[in-house]
Amino acid sequence: MIAVDAMGGDFAPGAIVKGALSAAKEFGIKIVLVGDEARISRYLSPSNELQLPIDIRHAPQRVEMGEVPSESFRQKPYSSMSVSLKMLYEKEVKAVVSAGNTGAFLYSAIKILNTLPKVKRPAISTIIPSIKGRTIVLDAGANVDCRPEWLLQFAIMGHLYAKIILKKERPKIALLNNGSEPTKGNRLTQEVYRILDNSSLNFVGNIEGNNIFYGEADVVVCDGFVGNIFLKLTEGFANIYVNMLKEEVSKRARSGIGAYLMKPAFENLNRRLDFTEYGGAPLLGVNGVCIVAHGSSPSYAIKNAIKTAEDFVIKDFNKTLPEEIERLEDLVTYRPSKRRWFWGSLRGSFSKERDEKEEKIE
Amino acid sequence: MIAVDAMGGDFAPGAIVKGALSAAKEFGIKIVLVGDEARISRYLSPSNELQLPIDIRHAPQRVEMGEVPSESFRQKPYSSMSVSLKMLYEKEVKAVVSAGNTGAFLYSAIKILNTLPKVKRPAISTIIPSIKGRTIVLDAGANVDCRPEWLLQFAIMGHLYAKIILKKERPKIALLNNGSEPTKGNRLTQEVYRILDNSSLNFVGNIEGNNIFYGEADVVVCDGFVGNIFLKLTEGFANIYVNMLKEEVSKRARSGIGAYLMKPAFENLNRRLDFTEYGGAPLLGVNGVCIVAHGSSPSYAIKNAIKTAEDFVIKDFNKTLPEEIERLEDLVTYRPSKRRWFWGSLRGSFSKERDEKEEKIE
Repeated sequence: MIAVDAMGGDFAPGAIVKGALSAAKEFGIKIVLVGDEARISRYLSPSNELQLPIDIRHAPQRVEMGEVPSESFRQKPYSSMSVSLKMLYEKEVKAVVSAGNTGAFLYSAIKILNTLPKVKRPAISTIIPSIKGRTIVLDAGANVDCRPEWLLQFAIMGHLYAKIILKKERPKIALLNNGSEPTKGNRLTQEVYRILDNSSLNFVGNIEGNNIFYGEADVVVCDGFVGNIFLKLTEGFANIYVNMLKEEVSKRARSGIGAYLMKPAFENLNRRLDFTEYGGAPLLGVNGVCIVAHGSSPSYAIKNAIKTAEDFVIKDFNKTLPEEIERLEDLVTYRPSKRRWFWGSLRGSFSKERDEKEEKIE
Repeated sequence: MIAVDAMGGDFAPGAIVKGALSAAKEFGIKIVLVGDEARISRYLSPSNELQLPIDIRHAPQRVEMGEVPSESFRQKPYSSMSVSLKMLYEKEVKAVVSAGNTGAFLYSAIKILNTLPKVKRPAISTIIPSIKGRTIVLDAGANVDCRPEWLLQFAIMGHLYAKIILKKERPKIALLNNGSEPTKGNRLTQEVYRILDNSSLNFVGNIEGNNIFYGEADVVVCDGFVGNIFLKLTEGFANIYVNMLKEEVSKRARSGIGAYLMKPAFENLNRRLDFTEYGGAPLLGVNGVCIVAHGSSPSYAIKNAIKTAEDFVIKDFNKTLPEEIERLEDLVTYRPSKRRWFWGSLRGSFSKERDEKEEKIE
């Protein structure tokens, strides 16, 4: 049984209910829709001719897109999001899917479910399209200020995701950086390079933004600040390109006919570049399978996200992850040099103190 | 007189000589081509039917694209790059244009010319195309680990660039961030937000990667690590989009005809998205006008970069910049809070010590 937050996302609850129906029909997945019972039934009852096994759990509150995660968590204990996560905590369901406020989902998931043993910080992982297929990028925005050892864990999480969910034999791990040479990078990525290079992961070195799309790596690791900027840019760019192309086309009659003839090619390409196709972004490292779907998810994206959730459950991802972290972290041979270590730990202890005073995630 | 590094760039010296000839012809700019005299003459003599005022200065060495900046600087004192910069230092020329190794150019420029008074760190500024026109993005890669006050200076440099070179009345300054709300960001951008918000610049707030292309800001400020990743991605994305579209087109005869008819629209769009069109990237904050042209610059890009160099000279940009920095920095009302200031200065002093031991730019 998988809980689906029926009130999250731009097209909720209509698209969510429709997506849940498709997932139940195509994959035989048992689903409970969480949210405003009356509204959900209005969409569900007339569409569910097949009497598919979809339950409804009433939740009277709803987290809006712009809300501050910590506030909505405190102020709305009966939101569809929190109720879903509590059902997962109580083992009533095996996974939660939500297309709602990503920050709030992450914050609530950590508060309610906690992180997995051995995991320092959970990360949001997304899949982006490439010429060769699909590439996992993480962290996509959970942690804006990172320490090097967190990125090692992100790499391990991505490695396991690629291996057991995407079935890549020996996933190629790359570090997003400002140049391909090993010496490139800021303080963080230089240190992370050394750590990954001395791990037993299949580390293929630094990768520059544009090369990700050529599918040179299966997993690309970065801090959440860079990851977020990268993904938003990627998401927006295809739109801008098409917009500008339309402007150019409108200047010429000949191009207009061309554009008409090319329409199927454009549509197919946009589908390939469409993030929502790829079945949601798992919150890796949380103690419970949680999948974020894009806020603007149409029903087929919700269906794909539910399928991804089931994959994570069936493959027992969250049981394997702490074992893999322990095993792979132990194999890292690199230890920072003494002077670096001294300054680093000193600086680290200040930041830690500050971190503990502040909240874990904003 | 402007010195042009004739040996830098993928198509040197052919494209460089051709670009210099166009600049001399179209704008009447006096140019000295620096590099291997014999090779330059081979391209220059047969093309210069108009007897345009182009000199050659022999320089026997050449900096290659992959070289480490500090090493090439030490090992090749007679490279076309270093000789050009020394001519600028000796006031034989008023500006230098190079399409060579950007890191080496920046490193050599700072070593030979030094930074301008009041400038903490020079920045590479680039122009990217947007739906409304052009947007300046800086730092594009000179400084990978930045302190908040450097980004204030980048904002001031960008402001002046937009105002006196691009002739924008009251340039809109934005901060590249992982969300549009003022609370978003990592430690660096949160601090920079407060500083810019309390300055007298026309600060319009945070901007997300995809919105840059809608032309919502005239100047976008970021650290050099993020800036570099952002620009490489932007540069590469149009190529990837077109590649994928070609794949889709090749699957359908109808699309093939469409693509043929759309060819002029594609070509025009690619020209609009072509960075090289925009006349090079100035190294702002260096004591001397230095313009980087893209390594793969064709001749018209070299011509545009020479024109940009002349604009900077005529508008006396480098005389105005230190005055503007002094004036605008004094108007900033924000001072970091005491606790933050304490930890900040403590951490700052460590990093400074480390910085001084390491070299200024790698």
